[in-house]
Amino acid sequence: MTTVAAYAAPAAKAPLERTTIERRAVREFDVLIDIEFAGICHSDIHQAQEGWGKAIFPMVPGHEIAGVVSEVGPGVTKYQVGDRVGVGCMVDSCRVCENCLKGLEQYCLDGNTGTYNAIGRDGEPTYGGYSQKVVVDENFVVRIPDGIPLDVAAPLLCAGITTYSPLRHWNAGPGKKVAVVGFGGLGHLGVKIAHALGAEVTVLSQSLRKQDDGLKLGADHYYATSDPKTFEELRGTFDLILSTVSAPLDLGAFLSLLRTDGALVNVGAPEEPVSLNLFSVIGGRKTLAGSGIGGIQETQEMLDFCAEHGIGAEIELISASEINEAYDRVQSSDVRYRFVIDTATI
Amino acid sequence: MTTVAAYAAPAAKAPLERTTIERRAVREFDVLIDIEFAGICHSDIHQAQEGWGKAIFPMVPGHEIAGVVSEVGPGVTKYQVGDRVGVGCMVDSCRVCENCLKGLEQYCLDGNTGTYNAIGRDGEPTYGGYSQKVVVDENFVVRIPDGIPLDVAAPLLCAGITTYSPLRHWNAGPGKKVAVVGFGGLGHLGVKIAHALGAEVTVLSQSLRKQDDGLKLGADHYYATSDPKTFEELRGTFDLILSTVSAPLDLGAFLSLLRTDGALVNVGAPEEPVSLNLFSVIGGRKTLAGSGIGGIQETQEMLDFCAEHGIGAEIELISASEINEAYDRVQSSDVRYRFVIDTATI
Repeated sequence: MTTVAAYAAPAAKAPLERTTIERRAVREFDVLIDIEFAGICHSDIHQAQEGWGKAIFPMVPGHEIAGVVSEVGPGVTKYQVGDRVGVGCMVDSCRVCENCLKGLEQYCLDGNTGTYNAIGRDGEPTYGGYSQKVVVDENFVVRIPDGIPLDVAAPLLCAGITTYSPLRHWNAGPGKKVAVVGFGGLGHLGVKIAHALGAEVTVLSQSLRKQDDGLKLGADHYYATSDPKTFEELRGTFDLILSTVSAPLDLGAFLSLLRTDGALVNVGAPEEPVSLNLFSVIGGRKTLAGSGIGGIQETQEMLDFCAEHGIGAEIELISASEINEAYDRVQSSDVRYRFVIDTATI
Repeated sequence: MTTVAAYAAPAAKAPLERTTIERRAVREFDVLIDIEFAGICHSDIHQAQEGWGKAIFPMVPGHEIAGVVSEVGPGVTKYQVGDRVGVGCMVDSCRVCENCLKGLEQYCLDGNTGTYNAIGRDGEPTYGGYSQKVVVDENFVVRIPDGIPLDVAAPLLCAGITTYSPLRHWNAGPGKKVAVVGFGGLGHLGVKIAHALGAEVTVLSQSLRKQDDGLKLGADHYYATSDPKTFEELRGTFDLILSTVSAPLDLGAFLSLLRTDGALVNVGAPEEPVSLNLFSVIGGRKTLAGSGIGGIQETQEMLDFCAEHGIGAEIELISASEINEAYDRVQSSDVRYRFVIDTATI
């Protein structure tokens, strides 16, 4: 066991504060990672505030982890001390169900083990990346290519894979018109990745406030959804719409922007149910779907793709003492485009 | 122009009564069909009662038409006098949009022309199959193979293609577990077709009242959705669920019955919006989709498939004077499984 400095929420809705946690001793297939950077994901806030249901406290959030290997267990074959690595939203799964065997550990039929706010398969609670070290089984660790600095790589571990996976699954690429709804942490990476995949990319944001950034980061077009003309002009346009927002959408309005056989894929989701008229999908054989993060192998593929295309997150680097303020700013969409904690400041 | 006997609703919600209508003279590419049988589809009732919005009256419903060619225009190449033919839900489309060019006339970007309750591209109202003759452009006529009697073929023109098209599009076949929700006019054909495609077929019906029929017609399993144990037992089971019901479904409950990457496809739809928690599609990357009838070429393919596999509808043959009573019985789900009008009785 190693005592490690961390930032934790002691209870639901309580401010995060500095504390220490115990990390397990390195086991046969474990990797000890000296964390350098940890991204702040909106879902950290949802969970710390119990917006998605009962949570486990104290909670050390953080599932966008980038660091360097400082110790490996005797059975580890994939990593060596000094390797640049990342950890995303999960640190284990059953490994034997049909989904795990297909590399879809995120949909493990027995439930994957979250990086934090979960009970591991050893019965111990998991603690996330707002800390200085973490111990993870090598099969849930990915390699961060040299081409990506660790600070801008961290958000790729959740926001990057969450957008990359559905963009690939629904075939974003040359000749395809892709819209990204919301231009925040997920959305700005969705735009970069969809652009790098060769698709024609449109941002659908509430306002034109971030239009300059959007066009600079890879969007071909940028529209305000607060303007009703947007929905007239873009009717029947898109092959794929990726919604990254967690506010309730007017699904019928967004479905009307799809071409025949198009798909509206949600990676963000509001806590409350939304209303849907099924005629919105019957006309034009449309799909309303969802997607959650990605598998481990696909996460590695995403990082390699991002390195090849020079993609990292746009970040605001903060010290640990600024975490609570950052939470407030994320909730008011006041971040361009991801807060990343310099874990040396914990 | 030819004066033809027909049954029509003179106004919204009014009983249907015998009348006469004018059919246009046969044009260059037209086929005159002596109608022998016309199926009664639930959507006839929705439209005659303006449940789906403002309608055109007098209305001669009927888009499940089977008959024999009695005259052809000089430019007609596909059909000859004496041919056994059918007409389904549409009698025209723009023919030049990308969907029409792909054989997806049902999703014509300019709107297809309904067989009734529509204004044709010549500006004249269209009248459906509850009549003795109809004139249709040969490109919207399909051939009924000799192997299928005309009376049991008629319902294939809507109920058959409406289930066949999504079953094919979402790859129902050997090794796939398919559920059909609702065991009525559409559902019983969905079961027959899914079974003939080689899928393992489960009926999800409100009760077990029609279980014997379901198992006889091709279902491997039959469950009552009124029993909460059904949803526990079948959790995560199906690759494809085809919902044929127009009552509002608990979408979350049915989505929970899908495997990872499964699809819940709606061909029936309630008039009111339904409620959906988007987490139901995010977990397991699930699809909620819709599908409307099928294209002309696909309708022909469906009829050929049905002939090859000995598939026709299970029908109750009625005379025209029984139409209003049949409407009442359809609304109380008291039909096994499709009413077909013997148009000689009009």
